[in-house]
Amino acid sequence: MIPHADRLRVVLVDVRNPLNIGAAARAISNFGFAQLDVVNPYEVAYQEAKSAVNAGAILEQSRRFATLAEALTDVTFVLGTTSVGPRVIDQPLYRLEAAAPLVREKLAAGPVALLFGSEKFGLSNHDLSFCHALVRIPTRVEHHSMNLGQSVAVCLYELIRDPQAVAPAAYEPADGEQVERFVELLQQALTESSYIDFDATPSALQKMRRMVHRLNLTMRDTYVWLGMLRQILWKLRQ
Amino acid sequence: MIPHADRLRVVLVDVRNPLNIGAAARAISNFGFAQLDVVNPYEVAYQEAKSAVNAGAILEQSRRFATLAEALTDVTFVLGTTSVGPRVIDQPLYRLEAAAPLVREKLAAGPVALLFGSEKFGLSNHDLSFCHALVRIPTRVEHHSMNLGQSVAVCLYELIRDPQAVAPAAYEPADGEQVERFVELLQQALTESSYIDFDATPSALQKMRRMVHRLNLTMRDTYVWLGMLRQILWKLRQ
Repeated sequence: MIPHADRLRVVLVDVRNPLNIGAAARAISNFGFAQLDVVNPYEVAYQEAKSAVNAGAILEQSRRFATLAEALTDVTFVLGTTSVGPRVIDQPLYRLEAAAPLVREKLAAGPVALLFGSEKFGLSNHDLSFCHALVRIPTRVEHHSMNLGQSVAVCLYELIRDPQAVAPAAYEPADGEQVERFVELLQQALTESSYIDFDATPSALQKMRRMVHRLNLTMRDTYVWLGMLRQILWKLRQ
Repeated sequence: MIPHADRLRVVLVDVRNPLNIGAAARAISNFGFAQLDVVNPYEVAYQEAKSAVNAGAILEQSRRFATLAEALTDVTFVLGTTSVGPRVIDQPLYRLEAAAPLVREKLAAGPVALLFGSEKFGLSNHDLSFCHALVRIPTRVEHHSMNLGQSVAVCLYELIRDPQAVAPAAYEPADGEQVERFVELLQQALTESSYIDFDATPSALQKMRRMVHRLNLTMRDTYVWLGMLRQILWKLRQ
């Protein structure tokens, strides 16, 4: 969730596939945004998407506009997505990573529209002329064009991603006493099963201890391992 | 493109929908990865995905395994995706942002598998038991479950995203002399069209100049604006 998430409009222009409309709606919901606007959709696709099972609130509240200009009447910043094909670019073009801070800044000032073009052609030059800036998902040059539903998801994810997210707390590592108990029981099991004669091979114990330390055992797991070894020892001694 | 991208395996377990297999393959290609592995797929779906028009190299080179264990035989690090439903988690759980550096580190050491479960149930507890760690896309709690193709795209994007990506170079801003030319021509046009009498309203010129400065004109655009104003003036004087 980011501040003013409700001010973002995901605007699909000239979409043809109901699955893509549904996928866009799902990503909007997953990432905590709210508004889906559809411009000049293939009407059958739009109705099909809206009537799908579990279409959800986003699709129900989505709006249909005949032209892009109508969809943008109260919007104060327009960002167009492009995979940068051959067309001439006359606006600042951001990589998605760099566009996200800009969008969050513009959301603080007013409604922001994020435009996606048709599956086949993307945004037209007419559509692009409404944009203050363009954004590009950093796909590779040889295969730059993304699936529409996936590109909506990736853009919205970048908007909500938290650079401060930290790795989970590590499990409590086993302490020296516990590891030494493990080493001792393993030594007994190996001796009693005649795997090795530790007295005859002085370095063997140290080698084994280093190997056990490389296991990076957690405190919790050592209790289970010690139980297993004790049971094996008990059986060996019968 | 990231180092050792060819060592990443996107592993789809128990998938049912050919569109999702195709979408995963497309994202793999978009973001410069290579290997798609499919475990126990709904056979019809897998064949349908492979035979789709423009299925592409990723699907052609994809591999089909009967069990997850077989898919992981030469893999040295396994990361499972989860939307964290009710099941008990016994592994470190990373938010996607924090998991990406871990995956890049593990790729330097050997093959890494990124597991995705079925559309309906996600990864099973059996599947999760093969994982060294789990990863979660930061969707909102009320709607955490993502579309499979979209979650593959978001995960792969996070792996290749460049935190150093910078905003595009700003256009060359108009310099003071050029802005002043604009102010002067606008003043003439407004005078000759009787919009205002600048001599009678001493502050008007300064007000207008401040307004022009707020346009933040680029050098390039001023040439066009000056041309427009000159043409309007020429017509006014006829």
